[in-house]
Amino acid sequence: MKQAKTRNPVGWGYIEDAPDPTERKAALDMLAVFLDGKVPEPVDAPVAKAIKLTPGRVEIPVALANWLSDKHNDRLLHALGRSFHDLARLRELTPLPAPDIVATPDSETALGRILEWADRERLAVIPFGGGSSVVGGVTAEKFDAFNGCVSVDLQDMRGLVELDERSRVAEFRGGTLGPDVDAALKPQDLSLRYFPQSYFHSTVGGWVATRGAGHFSTLHAKIEDQVQALRVMLPDGRISETRPLPASSVGIDPNRLWCGSEGFLGIITSARLRIHPRPRYRETQGIVFADFDQALEAAREILQSGLWPAQLRMLDPLEHLQSRLMQGRSAEGALMILGFESGHLPVDNAMQAALAITREHGGIPEVNDGNQGDSVSDWRQAFFRQPYLRDLLMDYGMILDTFETAVPWSRLPGFYHSVRDATQAAIDRICGHGIVMGRTTHAYPDGISLYFSFFALSRPGALTEQWYAIKAAASDAVMNGGGTISHHHAMGRDHKPWARQEIPLPFRDAIRAAKSSLDPNGIMNPGLWFDD
Amino acid sequence: MKQAKTRNPVGWGYIEDAPDPTERKAALDMLAVFLDGKVPEPVDAPVAKAIKLTPGRVEIPVALANWLSDKHNDRLLHALGRSFHDLARLRELTPLPAPDIVATPDSETALGRILEWADRERLAVIPFGGGSSVVGGVTAEKFDAFNGCVSVDLQDMRGLVELDERSRVAEFRGGTLGPDVDAALKPQDLSLRYFPQSYFHSTVGGWVATRGAGHFSTLHAKIEDQVQALRVMLPDGRISETRPLPASSVGIDPNRLWCGSEGFLGIITSARLRIHPRPRYRETQGIVFADFDQALEAAREILQSGLWPAQLRMLDPLEHLQSRLMQGRSAEGALMILGFESGHLPVDNAMQAALAITREHGGIPEVNDGNQGDSVSDWRQAFFRQPYLRDLLMDYGMILDTFETAVPWSRLPGFYHSVRDATQAAIDRICGHGIVMGRTTHAYPDGISLYFSFFALSRPGALTEQWYAIKAAASDAVMNGGGTISHHHAMGRDHKPWARQEIPLPFRDAIRAAKSSLDPNGIMNPGLWFDD
Repeated sequence: MKQAKTRNPVGWGYIEDAPDPTERKAALDMLAVFLDGKVPEPVDAPVAKAIKLTPGRVEIPVALANWLSDKHNDRLLHALGRSFHDLARLRELTPLPAPDIVATPDSETALGRILEWADRERLAVIPFGGGSSVVGGVTAEKFDAFNGCVSVDLQDMRGLVELDERSRVAEFRGGTLGPDVDAALKPQDLSLRYFPQSYFHSTVGGWVATRGAGHFSTLHAKIEDQVQALRVMLPDGRISETRPLPASSVGIDPNRLWCGSEGFLGIITSARLRIHPRPRYRETQGIVFADFDQALEAAREILQSGLWPAQLRMLDPLEHLQSRLMQGRSAEGALMILGFESGHLPVDNAMQAALAITREHGGIPEVNDGNQGDSVSDWRQAFFRQPYLRDLLMDYGMILDTFETAVPWSRLPGFYHSVRDATQAAIDRICGHGIVMGRTTHAYPDGISLYFSFFALSRPGALTEQWYAIKAAASDAVMNGGGTISHHHAMGRDHKPWARQEIPLPFRDAIRAAKSSLDPNGIMNPGLWFDD
Repeated sequence: MKQAKTRNPVGWGYIEDAPDPTERKAALDMLAVFLDGKVPEPVDAPVAKAIKLTPGRVEIPVALANWLSDKHNDRLLHALGRSFHDLARLRELTPLPAPDIVATPDSETALGRILEWADRERLAVIPFGGGSSVVGGVTAEKFDAFNGCVSVDLQDMRGLVELDERSRVAEFRGGTLGPDVDAALKPQDLSLRYFPQSYFHSTVGGWVATRGAGHFSTLHAKIEDQVQALRVMLPDGRISETRPLPASSVGIDPNRLWCGSEGFLGIITSARLRIHPRPRYRETQGIVFADFDQALEAAREILQSGLWPAQLRMLDPLEHLQSRLMQGRSAEGALMILGFESGHLPVDNAMQAALAITREHGGIPEVNDGNQGDSVSDWRQAFFRQPYLRDLLMDYGMILDTFETAVPWSRLPGFYHSVRDATQAAIDRICGHGIVMGRTTHAYPDGISLYFSFFALSRPGALTEQWYAIKAAASDAVMNGGGTISHHHAMGRDHKPWARQEIPLPFRDAIRAAKSSLDPNGIMNPGLWFDD
């Protein structure tokens, strides 16, 4: 099966989806405002063939030639993920470390043979789903302790394995991309309803391995809670398979060892996930609050009242304004996007109950007069386009990145302000001038996730260095405030220094021991969790 | 802090709560019907002081004397849990293996000193909460590979540590009993709403360590989903503590290693649990169905429509009849107990929507005419009393036990019938005559848990032997049908042979390695997971 679109080897997503002239102009107009008209000359991202990669060290064995490639373009496409950090590396680092070999097994048998070969030859193995990691989860380091590196791309291990309609569960192969998941379920009027920003270029296996979060703001937010059973291949070719069960109490839950394992213990070859009817009833409403703290407080009350909105996202005033400016409009105050959906029962009672709560906290429902457009659509539009615009603005030397976290309600609103202020202070110190804005993505009765975006003009040639200084200051603020270093992007290589503060030492010891047992040569995604 | 009631050393629960003459008479009348009037002479459970225990092998060190006891009654009270199997052992096995020492640490410091001593002296350690295990989770074996055995009772490490009202989370010490949890939250109008059958004699630490399930039939059913953070002490005295977070994606979830760990890796000294407002709005309704399969189908539709009833339990016709007979009434058909509750919003819309679904499946709402009583109260009454009656009927040589499991909806109703029939066939073969009945306890969009009860008259002196033969046949049927060997009672020692079929081998390897790392001398609850 071939992908219909062409992955951009030096940027986010697909080449066919790059910003069109209108979108480019809108983004550059905003940049001009931000930079007071002093927009620097753009420097395009390097073209693929001009990027120098570290020389390949591994010869392709004849018996596996069908599934292995050492072509420049394949190696480049698998050299790193799609974080700002990755794309800055790609512009600044030469030669760029890249896997020596890219493998595309088309069956568990093929995968088993590739893993056995890699284990025997002491090659580092990086499991590769859609390659959309923004935390350094698929970055090919130099891996000097190994004889080389294989990126194992699951793209040919995709598709629906089994649909259990009565139990509302579907099993997908690990390499299945978001749109293919949805297409497979559509004929039965079902859906996983999992639409992360990376939806078009991330996979079932990747979602589970990183403990991602999707479309639902509440209740079905995190993928690990949607896992009914998993099939995983270990580096020695053994398969670990769990029973399909709604719940169990037989010791420690085996599924949870693989959720968040980030390709570090084995490769998820298929996942049975809980699915939903496609919504038949649906209501969405934008609600404006004078300030963000009020919106947060309303959200807390909604969550704790036992309502489970499918959508509950709040934009702080700056993020609200920015999403409107992108559509040539303006806005004031914080925005709550509130939505309910159901495949079975009307949602108007729930919506009315939630709106009553927002009113008590000063929320004013937005009226769409047809002329102005509405904030909800504007924001949704911006959501999937943001990473493409990030790439464009990088050409002008802009640092644009995001980070996300979660905290218990009791830490709010102080946590939001302190993290935002610390990030702003770092940007001012490091770049002189920049913007931080925030939103929430997923909410729970006991807390909420916060998602910050920042941008600043870098000194030429210092993209990575200046980015890291800001990232470090923001991450320190997150940790000091009692947050997690990632609510749904995973640990990866980029978050390790802060993850260490969060993961209990005895648990690290337990994982180290489990790793030694399952992967004695340590070939699976080396450099995650431990430096050795 | 002293317990107000006296634990029964040879039976379930508290001596003060033993059946009164009226309740005894009702149970014995039912027994007479079952046995066609041929009720054997009762043989009372042995009195505590007449039970011979294995001789103690361990001397109490002076420095720890404050917290340690080797008294007969303490050793007996901690020799085993409260399963049928345990109480049969207690009647048949002499000398009865018992821990050499019972420890009651009153702080983490004391616990640390006791664990370090046990580790140094190579003493097996059995963490002991309320002692209500029905799967052999706290059974003191002979442990010949060790120099002795210490049961570590957490009863003096109890109480509320911290209440985070804004985040709806409360941290309790591991040894806190059910009623103490509720009492601590009541002044703030909050509740954990966790009322397992063992509510009065089980603890926070025990619930988490066994992945128990409580009051809620749906959504908040399993305790592992209510855990925000945990504090655990390892055998070397180190503390593993997780951050209080609503969710995270930083690698594998550290909380989940301790959920279901059954005292095998460390001792849970405190747990931060998600709590709820006490219900202000509440509706409960009994609904009668001509057969159990119809009730199951209605339940599936309720769950998959996005309704989350607080109560959704179904009794098969025999269980329904039995619960009514105990109150001197009669019944026909299967019963669904359907209830909604909320601390914030009215529940009548949800109840009406669920009732509409039951009607489509032939369900008829029960009308309480005041005279007849209602099935719901009758069953609730029976629920907490059942284990006491089990003890009474054991005196008459009756085998009475329960087992529970869970399966995806797609396996129903076949699974229910095959497990029930296989158990009935085993009883007929082994005991000649007996009854099996079933109910459901917890339900999910992708499946449901089934709970079976059986009773049969044993041959004198063969309680354990005949029980095990029935248990084995039932367990085989559960495994063959694709169920789990336990949905909320845990693995313990009793479920090991079947748990092995369910736990993937590579996961067992990973846990074995984690165990070696955290508990190198293997002192923590030996015999769980592995025989060595």
